[in-house]
Amino acid sequence: MDRLPKCGANYVPLTPLTFLTRASKCYANRTSIIYGGVRFTWSQTYERCCRLASSLRSLKIVKNDVVSVLAPNIPAMYEMHFAVPMAGAVLNAINTRLDAKNIAVILKHSEAKVFLVDYEYLEIAKKALELLVADFERSKTSEMLMPLVVVIDDINSPTGIRLGELEYEQLVFQGNPNYIPEEITNEWDPITLNYTSGTTSHPKGVVYSHRGAYLSTLSLILGWEMGTEPVYLWSLPMFHCNGWTFPWGIAARGGTNICIRNTTAQEMYTNIVSHNVTHMCCAPIVFNILLEAKPHEYRPITTRVQILTGGAPPPAPLLEKIERLGFHVVHAYGLTEATGPALVCEWQQKWNKLPSENKSKLKARQGVGILTLADVDVKNFKNMQSVPRDGKSIGEICLRGSSIMKGYFKNDKANAEVFKNGWFFTGDVGVIHSDGYLEIKDRSKDVIISGGENISSIEVENAIMRHPNVVEVSVVAMPHFRWGESPCAFVILSKNSEVKEVDIIAHCKSNLPGFMVPKKVKFVEELPKTGTGKVQKHHLRAIAKTFVISEKSNQTNKKTSQVNREKARYYDQNQEHILALSRL
Amino acid sequence: MDRLPKCGANYVPLTPLTFLTRASKCYANRTSIIYGGVRFTWSQTYERCCRLASSLRSLKIVKNDVVSVLAPNIPAMYEMHFAVPMAGAVLNAINTRLDAKNIAVILKHSEAKVFLVDYEYLEIAKKALELLVADFERSKTSEMLMPLVVVIDDINSPTGIRLGELEYEQLVFQGNPNYIPEEITNEWDPITLNYTSGTTSHPKGVVYSHRGAYLSTLSLILGWEMGTEPVYLWSLPMFHCNGWTFPWGIAARGGTNICIRNTTAQEMYTNIVSHNVTHMCCAPIVFNILLEAKPHEYRPITTRVQILTGGAPPPAPLLEKIERLGFHVVHAYGLTEATGPALVCEWQQKWNKLPSENKSKLKARQGVGILTLADVDVKNFKNMQSVPRDGKSIGEICLRGSSIMKGYFKNDKANAEVFKNGWFFTGDVGVIHSDGYLEIKDRSKDVIISGGENISSIEVENAIMRHPNVVEVSVVAMPHFRWGESPCAFVILSKNSEVKEVDIIAHCKSNLPGFMVPKKVKFVEELPKTGTGKVQKHHLRAIAKTFVISEKSNQTNKKTSQVNREKARYYDQNQEHILALSRL
Repeated sequence: MDRLPKCGANYVPLTPLTFLTRASKCYANRTSIIYGGVRFTWSQTYERCCRLASSLRSLKIVKNDVVSVLAPNIPAMYEMHFAVPMAGAVLNAINTRLDAKNIAVILKHSEAKVFLVDYEYLEIAKKALELLVADFERSKTSEMLMPLVVVIDDINSPTGIRLGELEYEQLVFQGNPNYIPEEITNEWDPITLNYTSGTTSHPKGVVYSHRGAYLSTLSLILGWEMGTEPVYLWSLPMFHCNGWTFPWGIAARGGTNICIRNTTAQEMYTNIVSHNVTHMCCAPIVFNILLEAKPHEYRPITTRVQILTGGAPPPAPLLEKIERLGFHVVHAYGLTEATGPALVCEWQQKWNKLPSENKSKLKARQGVGILTLADVDVKNFKNMQSVPRDGKSIGEICLRGSSIMKGYFKNDKANAEVFKNGWFFTGDVGVIHSDGYLEIKDRSKDVIISGGENISSIEVENAIMRHPNVVEVSVVAMPHFRWGESPCAFVILSKNSEVKEVDIIAHCKSNLPGFMVPKKVKFVEELPKTGTGKVQKHHLRAIAKTFVISEKSNQTNKKTSQVNREKARYYDQNQEHILALSRL
Repeated sequence: MDRLPKCGANYVPLTPLTFLTRASKCYANRTSIIYGGVRFTWSQTYERCCRLASSLRSLKIVKNDVVSVLAPNIPAMYEMHFAVPMAGAVLNAINTRLDAKNIAVILKHSEAKVFLVDYEYLEIAKKALELLVADFERSKTSEMLMPLVVVIDDINSPTGIRLGELEYEQLVFQGNPNYIPEEITNEWDPITLNYTSGTTSHPKGVVYSHRGAYLSTLSLILGWEMGTEPVYLWSLPMFHCNGWTFPWGIAARGGTNICIRNTTAQEMYTNIVSHNVTHMCCAPIVFNILLEAKPHEYRPITTRVQILTGGAPPPAPLLEKIERLGFHVVHAYGLTEATGPALVCEWQQKWNKLPSENKSKLKARQGVGILTLADVDVKNFKNMQSVPRDGKSIGEICLRGSSIMKGYFKNDKANAEVFKNGWFFTGDVGVIHSDGYLEIKDRSKDVIISGGENISSIEVENAIMRHPNVVEVSVVAMPHFRWGESPCAFVILSKNSEVKEVDIIAHCKSNLPGFMVPKKVKFVEELPKTGTGKVQKHHLRAIAKTFVISEKSNQTNKKTSQVNREKARYYDQNQEHILALSRL
C-alpha cells in the first residue's frame, strides 16, 4: 500500500494559485475586486494575472527571481500575489512606511529584478534607488544589480507620472491572456519574501513556501469561520505577512476584495456601508481610527462586520466600544515567521453567558493553535520542558508545522537561532491556561530578569494601569548593581494629575510582589511607537540605561548618567533607521 | 531561497492524527463522544486511543498492517479512526451490509492482521472466517493468514458475548495511556483502506494517504462551512469513505460526536433533540426515514440541523419536505476514490430570492470542486477536451488533486484504467453549466450509445417522470440490431392507472428527440436497489438484454428471449454477492 505511486492525478503540489484558477471557473462572474469606480470579476482577475505574469516573463523574470513592490492596498497589489508566482517568481511586498535607506537595503538583499512602485511612492523609491546605486559604487566588488522599475499609476484616475518606460496597466494590456502559468512542481518552492526586523537592526527576509502559504490560508479561513462570498475590506496592509494570507483566502472563498488606498475613517466607513463589508483585519490601532471618526466621516453599520485583530491584545474597554458600533472582534496572535496568525482565540459558546468584563479578558488571550500547525507549546527557558497548564508558569512560545516559514533568506545564523530541536522559537513569552488557551506575557527580550526571577513587563504594566491617574505605561529593564536588572516604568499621566513617582511605587507595592516593583518611574508625554501602535521598547531601554542604579549611585550618578545619556543618544540615532515593523 | 532546508519545525507531514492531539490540548474537557449513557471528553478520547494503539502494537501490529473492523457507528468505530493509524497501521472499515462471502474476500485481499467485530455482527463474522479458512485450505499454495479476532462488546450494556479471548474495552484498559503514537514520517503513507465495487464484481481496495485524508477533512469542513463546536449525529456509516472524513473533522472542530447504532427515526429524532444536533450527513434515503417517522418516534426540531447529502441528487419535493421539518440540506457529490465528497453545491446568496422550484433544481446540481482539489473537468469522450460550459455537452467528470486516493490496492489494471494523463476518471457523466457548476447526467456505464449518439439515461428518466401516472422509472440500454443500443425503460405506475406501453412512448415522443425515445417500456412493481437507495442498473441491463430488438425480431424473438432470460437469471445470481455499495 505504501508503494502505490504518486501521479499527476493524486499528488498535486499545494499552492494558493489553485484558489484563483478555481475561482475563475467556479465564481467566474462574481465581483472579485472593487476599488473606487473599478470593478473586476474573478474571470477578469484571472486573465489580468495571466497577462501580467506573461509580461513579467517577457521582462526576463525567471523561476525564483524576486519581484518587489511598494504600494498600498490597490488592485495591482492584490493581483501580484497571484501574477508574480504565476510567472514562477517570488513576491516581495515592501512596507510603505519604511524610509529610503531601508527600502534600498531590502532591494539589495533580496536581489530584486523588478521593482513595482505605486505613483504616490515614487519619490521615496527614487531615493532608495539612488542609495542602491551609491552602495553598488562603494562596494566595487559586487556587480551592479539594479531592478527594472515599473510605475503603478492610479487605475481610477491615471496621473501620467512615470519613472522610466514601464507602467503596470500597460504590462497587463500587453500581456498574453492565454498565458499558461509556470507549473509549480515542488510545493516547497518559495512564493513570497517578507522583510521583518522586529527590534533588531538587520532586516530579515522571511521566505514562505507555496505549501506553507496554502495551508495557512486554509487555517485562517477555518479559524475565523469565514463562509463563502465574504466582502473583505483591505484595512490590513498586504505587505504585512501577505495580508495574513487573505489575498489568497478571498479567492478561495469566492469573495469580493474592497481595496482602499488609505485606512482613514471616511474611506473605511464609506466602503463598509456601500459594499456591505462582512470581514476586515487590522491592528487594534485601527479601532481608534474607527472610534474617533468625525461626524461627517462616520456612517452607521447595519450588518455585523467581523474583525480579525492581532499585534497587541485589545484592551477590554476598546473591545467593548468597537463591538457596540457593530463590529465583532476575534483576536489572533502571529508573526511574520508563522505566515501571519498562528493562534486564534476561538470563541466558546459557554463564554457568551459571562459578564462583559470576563468576556473581554478571555478574548484578549491569544488562544489556540491554528489547524495547520502541528503543535504549539510553551517551554521552560531552562530545561525546554513544557510548562504546566496553570496560567502562571511562563516560558517561550514554540511552534511547529508546515505553515512556519522556510527560513530567513541568506541568514544561516538567524535560522540556527530560531529553529532548534524541531521547533520554531518565537521569542515571545507566555503561559498556558488550564483550558489550553495561551496568553502572551511578553517578548522574550522584554522579560526583565531580576535576581534570577523572570518578570513579565506586561504584568507590571497591567498593575500600573490600574492606578486611576495612569493613561498609558510601558515597562522595561534597567541595570541594577545587585539584581542585574530591575523594572523601570515610563508612564503617561492623565491631564492635571499631581501623582508623584513615590505614589506609583506605593501603588505597585500594594499590587505586586516586591521584586516586581519598579525601581524607577519616569513620567513622559508620549511613548515611541511603531506604525501599528506597538511601543518601541528598545528606545525606552536605551533611555532606561541612563537610570542605572549602581552601588555608589549617589556619588557617581551624575557622571554615569552623562556618559550613558550620550550612549543612549547614539543608540537612538542608530535606531532611527531600524525597521519599525511590528511583529505582525 | 529554494535551497532553504526543511526541518522538523517547518515541514511536518500532514496527517489527521494532529487533529486529535490538538483537540486533546485545546478542547481537553469538552465532550467528544456521546453514545447512550456513555460520554467521553477529548482528553479521554485521546488517552483511550493511545491505550488502544499500544495494545494493537502488543498484538504484533506493525507499520502498514491492516486492521479490519465490522461495526456500526459506535464509539469504538470512531476511536479506531485514530488509534489504528496511531499504531502505524491501516484501518479497514467493512460495510456491515455485506454478506459473509464478501467479508471473507475483503479479509483475504486486505491481509487483515486483526479483525474487530461488534457483538451484533459476530454470526456473520464467524461465517466469513469459516469461508476464509476453507479458502486457505483449498488454495494450498498460500500460507494461512487468519486475522486475530477482537469482539467489541456493547459499551453501554455489555453482553459478555465473546469469540476468542480478546475484547475491545479490555484492550483499551490494558493499554499504555502514555503510549507515544507511531510517528508519521511520510504523509504519503496509507491511513485507511476502503473496499468499494460499485457495479463490478471484484471489490476494489481504495487506499487513502495521511495527506489525502488531512486535506479532504479540511475541505469538507470548509465546503460545508462547519463552525467550531458542532454537534454531529452519526447517521452516515463510518464505513462509507471513513464517514466522509468527519471522524477526523469533528476532532478538528472540537465538536461532539453523537454515536448511534441504528439510523431509525426514533434514534435519530431522540438524539437530535436531546443533544441539540447541528450537523449530520446521510444519503437521501434517510430523508424518507425521517419523513416517515411514526408519531411516537417523531420529535419536533427546534434548532436548524445542517444535512450534507450525496449519493443521488435529492428530488425537489423531498428537499422541500425535509427542509420544512427544520433541516437544511447541502448537496455533495463524491466517490470512495475521492475520499468522499469531491464537489459541493455551494449555495449562492442570490439564489435565496428564487422561487422554491428553481432553488431545488439548483440545489440538486453537484456543484463545484472542493478547495483541496487542484482541478475538476468534464471531458469529451472522444478527444478528451473540456466540454463547453453550456449545461448540455456531456462528458466524463475528471478530478485531480491530493485528496484523490493513492490507488487501488493490488490492482494495477484498475489503477491504469482510472489514472490517465494526470487525471482521475470518475466514470460519471455530466455537464458544466455556464456558472461553473457541474451536474451529473449519468454513470458512464449507464450512458446509452445509440447510433453513435450518447443518450443520458437520466435525461430519459426525467422526461418519463413528467408523465402524471409514473411513480418511478429507470432507463438502461438494450441491444438494437440497427443502433447498437437503444433505451429501455422500467416503470412503476401509480396504483390503478391504466397506462399502456404505447402511452409512455407517445409521451416520450412529445418530450424527447426521436433517438432518445425508449424502444421498450416494461412495467414493474419494484426496482432493484442498493442499501443506500440507488437503482442497481446492472440487474435491469441483464433483463433488458432479453428484450433484444433484432432484425428478425418477430421470427426468432421467442427463442432468443428464452436463451437470454436464462443468461439473465445466471447473471442475477452472480450479481447477488456483488457488493451492493453505493459509489459514496
